[in-house]
Amino acid sequence: MTETTPNPGRKSPLHDFLAPDSIAIVGASADPTKRGYKAMVGLIKDGYQGAIYPINPKTDMVLGVKTYPSLEAVPGDIALALICTPAASIPGLMQECGRKGVKGAVILASGFRETGPAGAQLEQQVLDAARAGKVRIIGPNTSGMFNLHKKVNLLALTNIKAGDIGFISQSGNMLLSLVLEAENNGHVGFSTYVGPGNQTDIGFNDYLRYLGEDDNTRVATLYVEGFRDGQRFLQVAREITSKKPVVVYKSGSTELGKKAASSHTGALAGSFAMTMDLLRQVGVSVVYHSDEILPVAEGLGLMQKARGKRVAVISDGGGQATIATDRLSEAGLELAELTDATRQRLKDILLPQASLANPVDVAGSSDANPALLAECMKIVAADDNVDAVFLVGMFGGYHTRFAEHLLGDEMRGAEAMIELARHNDKPLVIYSLYAPVKPPALRRLHEAGVPVYGSIEHAVRVLAALGERGIYLQHQARQSAHPAIEPSAEMQAMFSRAQNEGRDLFEYEAKALLRAHGISVAPESIAHSADELAAVAATYGDQALAMKVVSKDILHKSDAGGVKLNLRGADALRTAFDKIMTSAKAYAPDADIRGVLVTPMAAKGTEVIVGVVRDPIFGPVLMFGLGGIFVEILEDVAFRAIPLSRHDAESMVDQIKGSKILQGVRGAAPVDKPALVELLLKVSSIVAAYPQVSELDLNPVLAYADGYAVVDARIITNRSVMN
Amino acid sequence: MTETTPNPGRKSPLHDFLAPDSIAIVGASADPTKRGYKAMVGLIKDGYQGAIYPINPKTDMVLGVKTYPSLEAVPGDIALALICTPAASIPGLMQECGRKGVKGAVILASGFRETGPAGAQLEQQVLDAARAGKVRIIGPNTSGMFNLHKKVNLLALTNIKAGDIGFISQSGNMLLSLVLEAENNGHVGFSTYVGPGNQTDIGFNDYLRYLGEDDNTRVATLYVEGFRDGQRFLQVAREITSKKPVVVYKSGSTELGKKAASSHTGALAGSFAMTMDLLRQVGVSVVYHSDEILPVAEGLGLMQKARGKRVAVISDGGGQATIATDRLSEAGLELAELTDATRQRLKDILLPQASLANPVDVAGSSDANPALLAECMKIVAADDNVDAVFLVGMFGGYHTRFAEHLLGDEMRGAEAMIELARHNDKPLVIYSLYAPVKPPALRRLHEAGVPVYGSIEHAVRVLAALGERGIYLQHQARQSAHPAIEPSAEMQAMFSRAQNEGRDLFEYEAKALLRAHGISVAPESIAHSADELAAVAATYGDQALAMKVVSKDILHKSDAGGVKLNLRGADALRTAFDKIMTSAKAYAPDADIRGVLVTPMAAKGTEVIVGVVRDPIFGPVLMFGLGGIFVEILEDVAFRAIPLSRHDAESMVDQIKGSKILQGVRGAAPVDKPALVELLLKVSSIVAAYPQVSELDLNPVLAYADGYAVVDARIITNRSVMN
Repeated sequence: MTETTPNPGRKSPLHDFLAPDSIAIVGASADPTKRGYKAMVGLIKDGYQGAIYPINPKTDMVLGVKTYPSLEAVPGDIALALICTPAASIPGLMQECGRKGVKGAVILASGFRETGPAGAQLEQQVLDAARAGKVRIIGPNTSGMFNLHKKVNLLALTNIKAGDIGFISQSGNMLLSLVLEAENNGHVGFSTYVGPGNQTDIGFNDYLRYLGEDDNTRVATLYVEGFRDGQRFLQVAREITSKKPVVVYKSGSTELGKKAASSHTGALAGSFAMTMDLLRQVGVSVVYHSDEILPVAEGLGLMQKARGKRVAVISDGGGQATIATDRLSEAGLELAELTDATRQRLKDILLPQASLANPVDVAGSSDANPALLAECMKIVAADDNVDAVFLVGMFGGYHTRFAEHLLGDEMRGAEAMIELARHNDKPLVIYSLYAPVKPPALRRLHEAGVPVYGSIEHAVRVLAALGERGIYLQHQARQSAHPAIEPSAEMQAMFSRAQNEGRDLFEYEAKALLRAHGISVAPESIAHSADELAAVAATYGDQALAMKVVSKDILHKSDAGGVKLNLRGADALRTAFDKIMTSAKAYAPDADIRGVLVTPMAAKGTEVIVGVVRDPIFGPVLMFGLGGIFVEILEDVAFRAIPLSRHDAESMVDQIKGSKILQGVRGAAPVDKPALVELLLKVSSIVAAYPQVSELDLNPVLAYADGYAVVDARIITNRSVMN
Repeated sequence: MTETTPNPGRKSPLHDFLAPDSIAIVGASADPTKRGYKAMVGLIKDGYQGAIYPINPKTDMVLGVKTYPSLEAVPGDIALALICTPAASIPGLMQECGRKGVKGAVILASGFRETGPAGAQLEQQVLDAARAGKVRIIGPNTSGMFNLHKKVNLLALTNIKAGDIGFISQSGNMLLSLVLEAENNGHVGFSTYVGPGNQTDIGFNDYLRYLGEDDNTRVATLYVEGFRDGQRFLQVAREITSKKPVVVYKSGSTELGKKAASSHTGALAGSFAMTMDLLRQVGVSVVYHSDEILPVAEGLGLMQKARGKRVAVISDGGGQATIATDRLSEAGLELAELTDATRQRLKDILLPQASLANPVDVAGSSDANPALLAECMKIVAADDNVDAVFLVGMFGGYHTRFAEHLLGDEMRGAEAMIELARHNDKPLVIYSLYAPVKPPALRRLHEAGVPVYGSIEHAVRVLAALGERGIYLQHQARQSAHPAIEPSAEMQAMFSRAQNEGRDLFEYEAKALLRAHGISVAPESIAHSADELAAVAATYGDQALAMKVVSKDILHKSDAGGVKLNLRGADALRTAFDKIMTSAKAYAPDADIRGVLVTPMAAKGTEVIVGVVRDPIFGPVLMFGLGGIFVEILEDVAFRAIPLSRHDAESMVDQIKGSKILQGVRGAAPVDKPALVELLLKVSSIVAAYPQVSELDLNPVLAYADGYAVVDARIITNRSVMN
């Protein structure tokens, strides 16, 4: 059930059977309701050029093609086997595939892991047999696959075009839904589809690599209920998104949805918000509504990216410009500030009542001359302040709305827009209220690869995805990897001691680790007995001090009466020490108490939290947020997979809703953001360098106008990692 | 520019001309590009049964209909005049309309208020002339109107059906957009459309009343850029929503959008979040995305309401059930808990692998028998725990997906669903991935008034609107109006004193007002000089006290050094008094200082804020929120128009994101919500009873496990209200 070993530099092995030269259909049948019949029809009707080998011991011919009694009876090589027989037959068939040298098998049968322990055992037998024979498995429990450019239409779908959207979907119905939307849309086509099913052998990361390498795919699109190796997926996605857009819809945004998803596939699903942050971190274009999947995939496939988020809106009046502005703003896009020269050029061709500020409202200027809109688009596209052009209104419907004879002018306008799209690198996105009725100018635009949307909301999602992708790529290009750090021998020894004692790090040890790698931590002293307090007091003079119990057995120090604050002088320390010892022993009589930690009280600052968890799916993940209610009530936190880039660290500080507080409110000075960014990067480096760190919690860190103070640090060790 | 006088009990005067028996077209023309020609075509083609009077002094006939040189030359009565001539001609024409007894005029011309002061003056002349002649005005600057049931198609739209959606839209393009969506959808029709234009005479509230009274309209739908008399609109909406659904899309959800909207129509727009709260308070079904307007209007028109928010989902497998669950949960809907009896009944007809918990997954049970889905719907609809039924999947496409011969079974399934929809009061909503290609079973469902959606997102918006409306109506039914209070003579006198002195209320006066009407306010004493402090100290014994300066000229008391806290005993009071006087005089040498207010320090509690503003559009509005960052950073506040019902007060406390804090966090006891609700109701009653209150600010109020304390109170007086 593990995923494939990474093998960077090599081409994905999936090409061998996802673009197969020969196909065997195990369970080929003359019964038209059977998958083994439908797949044959799909291959023959679409004109598949490779060899087709129906396997069926009970008949000589299926659909006029000679059958073979078994895979081994086939005279030629078999790249791909589509297996339509029930679960119990699969382990034996995998052995046979191995003997025959079949490269890949699509296993449709269900009745495996998703049904319980017996099914899981059967699935393991299937995997073992496949591994032994070097057969790769799609599924089991898959809806199947197609590769339309190779005319491998194993799903026998009709009314589907070959095109540039690659799709991997844990729901076969979601494929059908997109195919039907595309049929209605009339212009979107697909390259390769795979249903990963139980992901027994091949997982999302492998499929994504394949789509990334596939020349027929311009945008990789994924419907995911759960990842199995999220960490590997992030690595592959980071690589692929640098070459082409990757669109992901992830289900399970709510607890109820997660439950519904896991009863469906048994896939694990982490926190949705975290998953979204991590996918965006590696440049994935995330969509949140299922009806946005196809529009966003289409737009990214056609236009790939925008330089940034500054959109120029050209409208022919009406409320749609206002709606577009609301949606753009909600999506984090900006209205481009048009230059004076641009406004002058617009003024030269528009009526006096036109509004030249963005959104540009031509206010009737195009009523008798719709091609004028193309001129406006050209003018704003030439403006350096503009990253994308958004036409909003009734283009395509002028001849219906005003006068039949405007059709010619509309067609000329469409040609001018097509020309503009071809000869400039800024995306053109068109919303037309006439899109639902598909008038000629809009059909022409669509045919020529200029996308037209019938929903402002969808069009804006496309613009947002284009802008986000462009900005991501720029950051990637500028970015050098954050340098790794070397673990120190002293710290390794400290971990060894803790692990030998079967405990987590003490607070002072955790702080020592941080300090050893350049994180500012307040000084501290450890007193093992009351006798040492006088010396400790002398160290800090008249500073106010905090004292905390040191014991591996006391996790919640405050609850145990193990914390005393605002202490000054040796006498105060001694009284506090006695109280702490009494309370702690009362709280946990058997606790192994090693003494107390004494540290100067931190100055008041803004509480932030830095945490690290090792997510079972995505591996080490860093969390950042403001303390108190922001974390506890509002769950206002940002996540990034480790290691972080500088941009990751900066963007996570900016992402949280409470970032306004960090920028300074009610006249307070802003906190030292560069220092926080350094802190995040250092924590990331430490966790990357020390696999012994299982979880880390700096809570609170006090952020100041100048620097920060780590007030409390907790590190849970990974007991399974040996030094 | 004022709106019509309310006249409850009387039928809306708009019926006289929105369902006119005779129509004059001023500016009727033989030029096919002119509105005066198109309107004639629309009337004649659609078969308008009333009299048509083209007005044009230059020709005898337009489209075969005899013309008249002027309105006054027309022999019969004229109910409605469509005026297609330019702005300058309108004042004269209004006089003529008045003389002729024309009931209503649709004025298409622009060039009025929206163009600046000269246009505004012309608009006033138009209004004055109309008022004098008792002519009501639609527009000016309107896109026009239609009443399809009367065959009054003045917009000459083709491919549009008479139906039950009434639509009022400040954007003519938005009408076109809905009409084109409806054309594509094939089953939605419209009753009356009006573009209110500049709302010079008739505003949204009047149109809404008309649609509320119109028997052909089952759902009133509004696209609003700005209200002119929001307070009146809320009154009318409250009345109409009790009879039929009212759907509102309001543009300007963002600052940029608001700017774009106001440059378009010049309409004022208040805070978007406030507007949404107030619309929902009166039962309006608010939509946030423009592409949801038609689906939600259609669904509410057909099904009116659900009893509640508990939805049963029936799915035929695949990811759509998961997506539906995510969206339902995000929309605040619930998955109904099916009874054991219901599950047993499902079990009896489904395959063993079916999932009987909600969402119900038939897991292949319907593959050879799609009508089974109708049986499942019937079973869950009979469950008392279920308020609405949501079918999700590929119904309608079984004969395409599996076998042609399933078409008959699908049609039988559709009939069974139609039957179920007719004979049970729970909404049935269907999402089918085949909706885009309109297969026969889905066409049949749609024809019979069972709505089918091609977007899960839109279907869920419909379910949410149905549930919210049902719950609203239940609250309305249970609700008695919160009793009004009588203003007291003493308090009236206090306001008079303040107004005579041209000032707002002092804090102690504001608190006296609150106290006079039953709000708990801590006791306080006023010391006009240091001599009175000993007596004050004696009153409070050893309680810790706060002292604040009393001066109409010092608004920000803390900044002026005018607040001292934690004072105990006469000496401390005296020292504090001297310091306050010194600081306050230094801060504002000319200030009129009346002394100090002394009050016991409030115990620690949860800070909340209660505020009242008089909004220029919506009148007095109460705001509630948590103090500090919740208000300042997160803008996490709720609004209700005054007067509030008990449900209003309760729901606004629950609505804020910070309500979790009021419920108690980290082991803290929950605050006394009933006491807060009483406080809100009392503040509402006070503001309703005293028009002298312009703004009110209780900040902070400390909420406790038992009761609350108003710590600071500020009341800004309305200087224009005389006692």
